[in-house]
Amino acid sequence: MRILGIDPGIAIVGFGFVDKQGSKIVPVQYGSIQTEATTAPETRLLQVFEAAEELLDRYKPDAMAVEKLFFNRNVTTAFSVGQARGVTILAAAKRGISIAEYTPMQVKQAVVGYGKAEKKQVQEMVRIFLKLKEVPKPDDVADALAVAICHAHSSGLNDKLNGVSRT
Amino acid sequence: MRILGIDPGIAIVGFGFVDKQGSKIVPVQYGSIQTEATTAPETRLLQVFEAAEELLDRYKPDAMAVEKLFFNRNVTTAFSVGQARGVTILAAAKRGISIAEYTPMQVKQAVVGYGKAEKKQVQEMVRIFLKLKEVPKPDDVADALAVAICHAHSSGLNDKLNGVSRT
Repeated sequence: MRILGIDPGIAIVGFGFVDKQGSKIVPVQYGSIQTEATTAPETRLLQVFEAAEELLDRYKPDAMAVEKLFFNRNVTTAFSVGQARGVTILAAAKRGISIAEYTPMQVKQAVVGYGKAEKKQVQEMVRIFLKLKEVPKPDDVADALAVAICHAHSSGLNDKLNGVSRT
Repeated sequence: MRILGIDPGIAIVGFGFVDKQGSKIVPVQYGSIQTEATTAPETRLLQVFEAAEELLDRYKPDAMAVEKLFFNRNVTTAFSVGQARGVTILAAAKRGISIAEYTPMQVKQAVVGYGKAEKKQVQEMVRIFLKLKEVPKPDDVADALAVAICHAHSSGLNDKLNGVSRT
């Protein structure tokens, strides 16, 4: 099962594809889509959308996972992040890819085992889980991989629960 | 010149196409894209996007106008509205349609002549401007037409200013 985790933002959309192979989670590709502040907002949205489409068509994930966004002090930022998030989700929805949302606490719980873990702890656990030499940069990439790992764990758990309920 | 005004929301996206013919502004088509609360968020985004694409291809506007969103008390709503706004803007950007943003105050100023006008006054002026029997419903449709009228006025003003600067 291939999972794409994303961390959408205005200037940077972090992405990470991982393969779940039994109990192992293997990194496939990760990085970021970046747009320039000097570019018109609608062009930036188009660039994010087209880059997301290209990634989805190249790596063909079975599921996409993204953080649920509840809170942000800056509402203007919330609108912009919402717009970037919207076009990324749209690219997946157009392809019939299922989309899972997790709260930041669920991601921390899944990756570190503690829902109130520090950002640095999450990033370090991502590095260890995926057997990487260094924490992926920028932070958005590590965050995208974290939500992908969270979904890999959760879907494993769901498989088990379904297995139990069938017996 | 044909202008599409939109008022994007989660459940309802108001839209209004107007033609600017000299000093006259003529309504072409207006209405709303509505999605069901019981539908998955990603499917709702896809529905909004596909409906927007269909409208753009049918009515082929030269420009799209949308309200700038600065403020909203509910940040969760801001994210959702941002997502709907993002996919609508994307549909226009994909077609190379220019996108203009106006603050609520600019829209009121353009339509009523007073930047702090009441919502009801704006809606009534939309009705009068477009020689409609009734204020279009729901409110999102009247709001979409208001921003379209605002752009029609502003682009006229820009034409005049450009004319002056050329002499």
